[in-house]
Amino acid sequence: MQFYMPFRLITGNNVVRSNGAALSAFGRRCLIVTGGSSAKTCGALDDVTAALSEQNIAYTVYDGIRQNPTMASCLAGGQIGADFCADFVVGVGGGSPLDAAKVIAVCIANPEAAEDALYRLEWANRPVPIVLVGTTAGTGSEVTSVAVITNSEGRKRSVRGNDLYAALSFGDPRYTATMPHAVTASTGVDALCHCAESFWSKPASDVSRALATEGIRLLVPALEQVASGITPDAQMRESLYSASILGGMAISVTGTCAPHTIGYLLSEQYGVPHGFACACFLTAFLRHSEAAAPEVASLFRAKTGMDIARIESLLQKLLPPYHFHLSDAELDALLPRWPLTVPNLAKTPGTCDSAVVKTFLRSVFAE
Amino acid sequence: MQFYMPFRLITGNNVVRSNGAALSAFGRRCLIVTGGSSAKTCGALDDVTAALSEQNIAYTVYDGIRQNPTMASCLAGGQIGADFCADFVVGVGGGSPLDAAKVIAVCIANPEAAEDALYRLEWANRPVPIVLVGTTAGTGSEVTSVAVITNSEGRKRSVRGNDLYAALSFGDPRYTATMPHAVTASTGVDALCHCAESFWSKPASDVSRALATEGIRLLVPALEQVASGITPDAQMRESLYSASILGGMAISVTGTCAPHTIGYLLSEQYGVPHGFACACFLTAFLRHSEAAAPEVASLFRAKTGMDIARIESLLQKLLPPYHFHLSDAELDALLPRWPLTVPNLAKTPGTCDSAVVKTFLRSVFAE
Repeated sequence: MQFYMPFRLITGNNVVRSNGAALSAFGRRCLIVTGGSSAKTCGALDDVTAALSEQNIAYTVYDGIRQNPTMASCLAGGQIGADFCADFVVGVGGGSPLDAAKVIAVCIANPEAAEDALYRLEWANRPVPIVLVGTTAGTGSEVTSVAVITNSEGRKRSVRGNDLYAALSFGDPRYTATMPHAVTASTGVDALCHCAESFWSKPASDVSRALATEGIRLLVPALEQVASGITPDAQMRESLYSASILGGMAISVTGTCAPHTIGYLLSEQYGVPHGFACACFLTAFLRHSEAAAPEVASLFRAKTGMDIARIESLLQKLLPPYHFHLSDAELDALLPRWPLTVPNLAKTPGTCDSAVVKTFLRSVFAE
Repeated sequence: MQFYMPFRLITGNNVVRSNGAALSAFGRRCLIVTGGSSAKTCGALDDVTAALSEQNIAYTVYDGIRQNPTMASCLAGGQIGADFCADFVVGVGGGSPLDAAKVIAVCIANPEAAEDALYRLEWANRPVPIVLVGTTAGTGSEVTSVAVITNSEGRKRSVRGNDLYAALSFGDPRYTATMPHAVTASTGVDALCHCAESFWSKPASDVSRALATEGIRLLVPALEQVASGITPDAQMRESLYSASILGGMAISVTGTCAPHTIGYLLSEQYGVPHGFACACFLTAFLRHSEAAAPEVASLFRAKTGMDIARIESLLQKLLPPYHFHLSDAELDALLPRWPLTVPNLAKTPGTCDSAVVKTFLRSVFAE
């Protein structure tokens, strides 16, 4: 096992305001990276700007990040940050602004960096310090070294590196209280995918499984309530947020498996929100994994107290009624996208070759 | 919750030899800090010296660390390291050499540091990088920022600080295979205390409890086998080692509770090995905590699948048949040692005042 999580994480009510002094360690000028409106609605952006002002830290806001953030938007943010002479970045929002903030921190320190070099992890200078403030309960980006950024060809690709860990992450579950039902559901199943994929991942260890197990034990009952239409109360929001952190830490050890890389297709081609997109493939992944690694299946049942049928039933209730159709020939044409060497597939139990990927695709693209 | 674990941990068979190249990041001259003979017997010391030689890193060995290591021995090691111009230290062994290596790293960078200043965490320069190679399954020192060092008055006191996290920790469970039965038992119950105390600690979070829960689930059945006289096989050694890491990470979040601080007394005055010393107070601590925090008791049973009676019965089989006797007046005379402000007591469920501490002491010092 390799374990490396050099971030500082502070979670709890009001943590941004009560730990504002920690921000001054990172410099005097800050670029805030955020999305459309949710960071404003939930109060996180106000807390961040108030904390920065209290510390007399100058800031400017770049709110040009959208869902499935593009590398172009990161390069634009990096330019704004460099022009502002930002000493550090604060990403505020769900997975998209947090992922983008990581890459923008690289771009600020490396203004000449171009798209290809960023995906190849080729940059000369260490990124400026990264501070993250999560406002959804799912991505786990607060505690991972990964940013998933859409390239100029419309493909979601990872930028990953130890440089991309946050120096400081804040998690205040109250920010998640204003999430619409569909966002609670989509981000929640993203966390469920993180935990489940990590649990089954070939490099899983006792430590990563401890984190993934607890995440699943928190998520399934909470998401069952979400599925039945109950509006989460403060305690359920805390559970969901904790589970998203547990899932993020678990994949920081193991990475994700097939559902994540195959799910990108649904986001790119059909605009399916990331969590739903991965979850569309989760049941097929679990069924495959159960057969390929029966000893892990026993562990999964013993540790989490869940069986796959319960998760399948939960997903059926939570996921929108998608009806995608592709012919057998169309599916075959997609397969070269996922060679066996894709890390997510290499980590999937058994041998996740084209035949297996096709069964996953078929489970979604029913003819 | 605050989570900060900036170390890199690599565990598995042969990790020292197969990751030797990672050592060259820390410099060209190394002080190895170790104890009497166990690091030699188990092969860890040979692996470390071979890895250093392969990297052309000059080293010298300081093997002056004994159980319950003294500050004098740390100061002596610091002098040797400074004279050798060591760029970094590698601690090899159980909790004693690992804890000592952390303080020696401070002393090398601060040759003028004296005992009092070290306990007050007052040092001008950052310690030289710390590499740790654990050879027991209990301490968790590989993943904590704490060193427990005996002062010149014979009292065990903590030196704790983010500077004391290892830059790199190696854990090869094969090193634990040569531990004598009593060491397996004592270090194993130390890990059990870490997990149990952390689970019940007031600052416990979902993350720390996930780690502690998994530790307990691994430890109790494995230690039941140890108690029944079974010699651990490789898989059981892996479980015990994993559990010690899980326990170390859990207390990195929460710290320990009453059994640890009260247990120091038994090590100082009666030479009881650290793990046994803490475990002597564990049952009384759990009984107190169960009454003081019934909601945590429910969580404990639900998550770990254990009840306190099972742990009590396990400890009765594992602990040597100690018979300590102190009168009521003698116990009263000890109480000022543990004011309510001791962090371990403040974190213990309920109010761990003198009356409670006395019940803990009475459970051991039966008249």
